[in-house]
Amino acid sequence: MKLVVLRIGHRPMRDKRITTHVGLTARALGANGMLLAADDPNVKESIDNVVSRWGGDFFIEIGVDWRKAIKRWKEEGGMVVHLTMYGLNLPDVIESADLTNSTNSIGVMRNRDLLIIVGAEKVPPGIYDLADLNVAVGNQPHSEVAALAIFLDRVQDGAELRGTFAGCDREIVPTNVGKLVIDRTSG
Amino acid sequence: MKLVVLRIGHRPMRDKRITTHVGLTARALGANGMLLAADDPNVKESIDNVVSRWGGDFFIEIGVDWRKAIKRWKEEGGMVVHLTMYGLNLPDVIESADLTNSTNSIGVMRNRDLLIIVGAEKVPPGIYDLADLNVAVGNQPHSEVAALAIFLDRVQDGAELRGTFAGCDREIVPTNVGKLVIDRTSG
Repeated sequence: MKLVVLRIGHRPMRDKRITTHVGLTARALGANGMLLAADDPNVKESIDNVVSRWGGDFFIEIGVDWRKAIKRWKEEGGMVVHLTMYGLNLPDVIESADLTNSTNSIGVMRNRDLLIIVGAEKVPPGIYDLADLNVAVGNQPHSEVAALAIFLDRVQDGAELRGTFAGCDREIVPTNVGKLVIDRTSG
Repeated sequence: MKLVVLRIGHRPMRDKRITTHVGLTARALGANGMLLAADDPNVKESIDNVVSRWGGDFFIEIGVDWRKAIKRWKEEGGMVVHLTMYGLNLPDVIESADLTNSTNSIGVMRNRDLLIIVGAEKVPPGIYDLADLNVAVGNQPHSEVAALAIFLDRVQDGAELRGTFAGCDREIVPTNVGKLVIDRTSG
């Protein structure tokens, strides 16, 4: 199961931090990479820096043509899920997993490669039709970072929070008070 | 079970959008309100606007003294949970729920009033000691918005995504394509 985020509607000045949060959330929750439909080297640099220190092989591509990316994903047999507050509510999508023949179910997502579209404030209207599934994480206005996090957490088996990242310079030892970090670059 | 977010380390210019995402995520996922340890009327205005249109009684207080807020919360019998990438990993905290006498378990959180501390990039070192529990949502650098979202989703029963908000002007009808919104202000 491949999980890739397609970030659209990014405005370089205004959205730099939110888009960086989207990318880091995708990485931390087990996605393979992010395609950014904007040419913003600052976001790429921020995320590449985290990858080089904290490990793993999360990739980020900038300047991506979103129409071509969606088309290619579908041609290769993947599924396209658009996260939007107007979509089908995630718990309903999950509960219909047992309904055979339902195309609106998380059952059809499991074991499929998913391209997860995460928009900024406004998205091109065509996105709703291009997506195989439009999914809301609660039908309330909140945050695309939160929506992506909960979607990734629920669509996987929950073990993604225990993920380890190969080749890291830094690794946290969980503790209830203070900070314990193994730093492999020192000593 | 009362759930209130305490947002610390907020820098008005730099963090306005992220803190607004934190507040809206808290509201959408069933928290009662947010205390902001900074004097930023813009954030309050953004969130109050969403509450007035989309309903519910989520509150936001600005200019809060975080030391006093934590002290008062504890005096009233509530529990203080600090979300930090250095803390105990959430899945481990959840799994220890069945261990009686464990103070590091989600079991002790259930049915307690929780003050959930969400820091920006740097937090005062004293926070780790003041918190009853320091919890990581995966021990990787990502986003406080994502961490809060997954924490709220997992600490509740999952039904919070179906929450309804009384007194709303606008309400979404979930649909797989396009946008369906009931607007009670028109007509």
